[in-house]
Amino acid sequence: MKYSSINLEQKFARFSEHWRPKIVAELNDYQLKLAKIEGEFVWHQHEDTDELFICEDGELLIEFRDGSVTLGPGELFVVPKGVEHKPSAREECKILLIEPRGVVNTGEADSDLAAAGEEWI
Amino acid sequence: MKYSSINLEQKFARFSEHWRPKIVAELNDYQLKLAKIEGEFVWHQHEDTDELFICEDGELLIEFRDGSVTLGPGELFVVPKGVEHKPSAREECKILLIEPRGVVNTGEADSDLAAAGEEWI
Repeated sequence: MKYSSINLEQKFARFSEHWRPKIVAELNDYQLKLAKIEGEFVWHQHEDTDELFICEDGELLIEFRDGSVTLGPGELFVVPKGVEHKPSAREECKILLIEPRGVVNTGEADSDLAAAGEEWI
Repeated sequence: MKYSSINLEQKFARFSEHWRPKIVAELNDYQLKLAKIEGEFVWHQHEDTDELFICEDGELLIEFRDGSVTLGPGELFVVPKGVEHKPSAREECKILLIEPRGVVNTGEADSDLAAAGEEWI
């Protein structure tokens, strides 16, 4: 059987749109998604799940109502379930997200940025 | 509140032993673990869960009974549940693993390399 690795750089090269996560793999009922982001996202939360952000390139700011965290390449952060947060990036940033299958990127928020996250790349 | 990112390079600098995964974060009931590996691990499988390998530095070879896959930096692979595999690295390699809490690194195999994986760093 043929086994192939997933090369993140090659996958990122295949899309350019912002705030539209693309699935690259599944781990049990979790999905690994790549996203390019730039500008500000909406405040939102995920009531039922934590969310893992890994910064692959650029700088990701995650704001909370009572603080913030900045991620550079090779840094990660887990946003705990139920915690309101707003991701943003002043310049284009590439991130790897891991969260359960079916999670909507905007969580409980009502936004045009909502993406069901069912697009594979 | 103070929020802090997890810097993988800084975490890797804090240990040197091989084949002893260190937990750096949890995502719901999953754990993110860092490991330094060199040489050959044992053939094993995890009957109940997939296992995610992300190569952070060096080159990771994962052999299967019917093939193999090689991961360089920025590459990942999900070993499906129940699939026998043997990780190895000719030179030291740094990896990020994600799997459910409580998974033993040697799976169903009986080995001195078994680590319960409950060590945080």
